[in-house]
Amino acid sequence: MQKIRIGIIGYGNLGRGVEAAVRMNEDMELVGIFTRRDPESLQTQAPAFAIGELDRFAGEIDVCILCGGSATDIVEQGPMIARRFNFVDAFDTHAKIPAYYEAMDAVAKECGHTGIISTGWDPGLFSMMRVLMEAVLPNGHTETFWGKGVSQGHSDALRHIEGVKGAVQYTIPNEAAIERIRSGELPELTARQKHTRECFIVLEEGADFEAIREQIVTMPNYFADYDTTVHVISAEELARDHSGMPHGGRVIRTGSTAEGMRQVIEFGLALESNPEFTASVNVAFARAAARFAKEGHTGAKTVADIPLGYLSKRSPEDIRKNMI
Amino acid sequence: MQKIRIGIIGYGNLGRGVEAAVRMNEDMELVGIFTRRDPESLQTQAPAFAIGELDRFAGEIDVCILCGGSATDIVEQGPMIARRFNFVDAFDTHAKIPAYYEAMDAVAKECGHTGIISTGWDPGLFSMMRVLMEAVLPNGHTETFWGKGVSQGHSDALRHIEGVKGAVQYTIPNEAAIERIRSGELPELTARQKHTRECFIVLEEGADFEAIREQIVTMPNYFADYDTTVHVISAEELARDHSGMPHGGRVIRTGSTAEGMRQVIEFGLALESNPEFTASVNVAFARAAARFAKEGHTGAKTVADIPLGYLSKRSPEDIRKNMI
Repeated sequence: MQKIRIGIIGYGNLGRGVEAAVRMNEDMELVGIFTRRDPESLQTQAPAFAIGELDRFAGEIDVCILCGGSATDIVEQGPMIARRFNFVDAFDTHAKIPAYYEAMDAVAKECGHTGIISTGWDPGLFSMMRVLMEAVLPNGHTETFWGKGVSQGHSDALRHIEGVKGAVQYTIPNEAAIERIRSGELPELTARQKHTRECFIVLEEGADFEAIREQIVTMPNYFADYDTTVHVISAEELARDHSGMPHGGRVIRTGSTAEGMRQVIEFGLALESNPEFTASVNVAFARAAARFAKEGHTGAKTVADIPLGYLSKRSPEDIRKNMI
Repeated sequence: MQKIRIGIIGYGNLGRGVEAAVRMNEDMELVGIFTRRDPESLQTQAPAFAIGELDRFAGEIDVCILCGGSATDIVEQGPMIARRFNFVDAFDTHAKIPAYYEAMDAVAKECGHTGIISTGWDPGLFSMMRVLMEAVLPNGHTETFWGKGVSQGHSDALRHIEGVKGAVQYTIPNEAAIERIRSGELPELTARQKHTRECFIVLEEGADFEAIREQIVTMPNYFADYDTTVHVISAEELARDHSGMPHGGRVIRTGSTAEGMRQVIEFGLALESNPEFTASVNVAFARAAARFAKEGHTGAKTVADIPLGYLSKRSPEDIRKNMI
């Protein structure tokens, strides 16, 4: 059987995760990594090319996996890549998904390609669970909790504060709130009730901790709506104890059926590496994108449009025999 | 918008659950309940008919939901119904699913209908999770645990013992085994290590408890491979404390990505009413079957063939805006 030929666009944590995940799927092969940096500078055994060379791989790559950041890279690169290739991305700016979908769908349809946007775990697997859970329990309430895990956005916000040399921020779900949801209570939970935020910062010499702490805990959007604790640590401690990228979370739906019976559905992730797991999900969806392309589909799709069997290496017969 | 017109075939616990679930979905309406019993005898406000009258509803029912037992009813009824109608069932004899699929697929294709077999939660939602989890974490190990909940098959086995007047059996997952799986150990768990079985029996007058207990705990297939406890209770206690049909379970996959990072995915259900929840799942899949039929699909499908969005009342736009 012909392997699914993958191109990786962008080589940060996510791109490295995709490279490793492709190696774990024997029905796939990596054609190349495409980067804006000097391709010679990448720490990889795989073929690496300047992003400008991508076009000459039309016909040699079945699916491009976009591994840049959502804020700027993917929004720009996505439509350009959909013009020449099938695609998968982990576009994760929830509010902009409808507009991004429209842009990708238009280009992909026009150029005869297909692909799946916003794969990963949230958006991605969690989105799928929200759709599934609501469909099977229409009379109920869904909550999503994140963590314990590192939020890159919040860590970046800390690093931009004057006097802060290094930082990492953990999002921590409130176990009491989780229990209330599971128990069938339908509380209107505030941001503060659902999660707490824990910051570890390394200070520049002479920086005023109390002033910085105040600046953090009152920072709008990021910390003001949460109970936030701030710890000062050394640069060595930051490197030694906080260089991993763990994350996770859970989607819980509690609802009732006919006789007021309580029914609880829960989906949870506990991840030692957020980017590697996201990459693994991207790669499974690349398999689905390749299959849709083979069937002649065009246009953009989301995770809600994909039969789960399309994610699997197994044949439909194998799934019926061994997985159902 | 035209409502999805549902027919219920069989009116036991599952059929009653489907009747209630259809009422909770405003895009559906119940055309009728079809029974082998005297339709006048059913405790329902819905239109009830003898099963022999079903044929004259061709064209008036979009999807029939088969609510009989898997052992005999569905195997026989399924192909007859697929000849005239689109269908959904909860066929749950795992080993016979491939053969049942082939039979249903052949008839449905020949007669231009479509439908989804083996929906419910296991098979059903748990099957979907096994496929999804393996696809996104190819290097790992999946375990399914059931309970705490009532097993109808095991309860029936107890009731068939001479001297036993009434009985209920609970399947209980071993929390220590669950923790081992979550922790990333890959133990080969025996049946005994995964679950225990707890029996509550009401004895006939003069029955010999010790002999009956021995007969239970050594019963092949059902109890011999498990640690089984047997409690004698009164008929009143059985009726008062054990008439519910709770169940649940979880599917856990622990795997590793590139750098040996441990990643855990878990899907769990805690159900106060097993038949009502199964019915709710059946009804969501009936929505997907109706949509497939509208699109001109024919043949049988499984839960692995269904895009999750097809289960939802929401439009694709709505899903992209609010659920992804």
